[in-house]
Amino acid sequence: MHKPVLGIIGGVGPLATAYFMQLLIQKTEAHTDQENMPMIVFNDPQIPDRTSYILDNAEPDPLPELVKVAQWLQNAGADFLAIPCNTAHYFYDSISESVSIPLVNILQETADVIAKKTNKHATVGLMATRGTIASNLYQGYFAQLGMDVKIPTEAEQDLLMGLIYDCVKANRPYDENVLLNIAHNMHDKGCDTVIIGCTELSVIYQNLAQKPAWLIDALDVLAETCCMIYKLARDEDNACDM
Amino acid sequence: MHKPVLGIIGGVGPLATAYFMQLLIQKTEAHTDQENMPMIVFNDPQIPDRTSYILDNAEPDPLPELVKVAQWLQNAGADFLAIPCNTAHYFYDSISESVSIPLVNILQETADVIAKKTNKHATVGLMATRGTIASNLYQGYFAQLGMDVKIPTEAEQDLLMGLIYDCVKANRPYDENVLLNIAHNMHDKGCDTVIIGCTELSVIYQNLAQKPAWLIDALDVLAETCCMIYKLARDEDNACDM
Repeated sequence: MHKPVLGIIGGVGPLATAYFMQLLIQKTEAHTDQENMPMIVFNDPQIPDRTSYILDNAEPDPLPELVKVAQWLQNAGADFLAIPCNTAHYFYDSISESVSIPLVNILQETADVIAKKTNKHATVGLMATRGTIASNLYQGYFAQLGMDVKIPTEAEQDLLMGLIYDCVKANRPYDENVLLNIAHNMHDKGCDTVIIGCTELSVIYQNLAQKPAWLIDALDVLAETCCMIYKLARDEDNACDM
Repeated sequence: MHKPVLGIIGGVGPLATAYFMQLLIQKTEAHTDQENMPMIVFNDPQIPDRTSYILDNAEPDPLPELVKVAQWLQNAGADFLAIPCNTAHYFYDSISESVSIPLVNILQETADVIAKKTNKHATVGLMATRGTIASNLYQGYFAQLGMDVKIPTEAEQDLLMGLIYDCVKANRPYDENVLLNIAHNMHDKGCDTVIIGCTELSVIYQNLAQKPAWLIDALDVLAETCCMIYKLARDEDNACDM
């Protein structure tokens, strides 16, 4: 197999994992099967819910299982890791420290992309789980860049949690306009950029007929970063072969 | 992790693998992440092309790599295996004999579903790679059921190979009506049932605005079968727990 191999800590949630694979493939400059990025996906949907642990300290703690999957992927031959779940990045430091290969950070990459795109002059709106919002992780990355983050109203947050838990994770239909309307509300209230900061919302975002340029999908950023890492390593390898 | 764990011999091709995961998730009766089917996906796009080996004996032989991935998945904890690639089933017996866990057979399952649905009274049209058609595998399964298989004209087969290799595998856009028109031609010429017998064509099929009832997607059948195996094993487990 070509190197580097991407290890995906998947199942958090499952549909977001499949969509992440699809994004990675579509973003890879490949015109045959063989030119594609090798990946090992450990789709472990039994990883306990992240948001309920963060908000209520509800047992079981998802960390041990996340670490187990990360180490399993490293032992299986992965050269770098990604987690297609924003909320799971609450445990980023602990997971990262448990392995000796890099773990791409969806929050850090998304903050960096937006800072670069807006020259750090933007108020950022964040659509995410209550767990991600309460953990203040995105807010922390943007604060380091001198940027402000606004969150949805309580009523909007209820609607977002409904889309995430009662629709995408529950395998039930949804109206993608609910997501788009909340994004527009936040934009109208002064958010120059709005983040799709939950990978279940990314699954909905893919189906939007129109994707405003100020709406940034964190899962898309994660896929871009992973493809760039793969491409740089491949180009380096090819240069060495000459 | 819940048992049983599905091991997916993936990357043949990559987009078909991601779509197969999506199908499995959508077909699982799950309303939370945790109720979903655990899967290990080894997406190894460097498995050599199957059709060029079957048609021209072009080296390298894909079998050793297919066996390696199957055995790797078994060692990693998979309880049963699936390959989201019809043409790779040319090597079914050898892969199956190399492991001690079941390998679901997309060709056998599709033939059985169609035989049951039509009470064995159907002429079947097959849309597939030249490799799958030349190998006579589908034809063999249907012959055992006393059923006839018709294949596309040479001109239609050229168009199908273009869709598979120059569009889906090459990450380039396509017109899904090309697939639909060939299916309709075959149906008009007396094929009561037409099989989407190549997983790249399944990727196109998912985007059809209208899916005629006589058009059967083999990848859909494979996903149904895997979900059924998972459900039966889970129900049995739950019964034992009582």
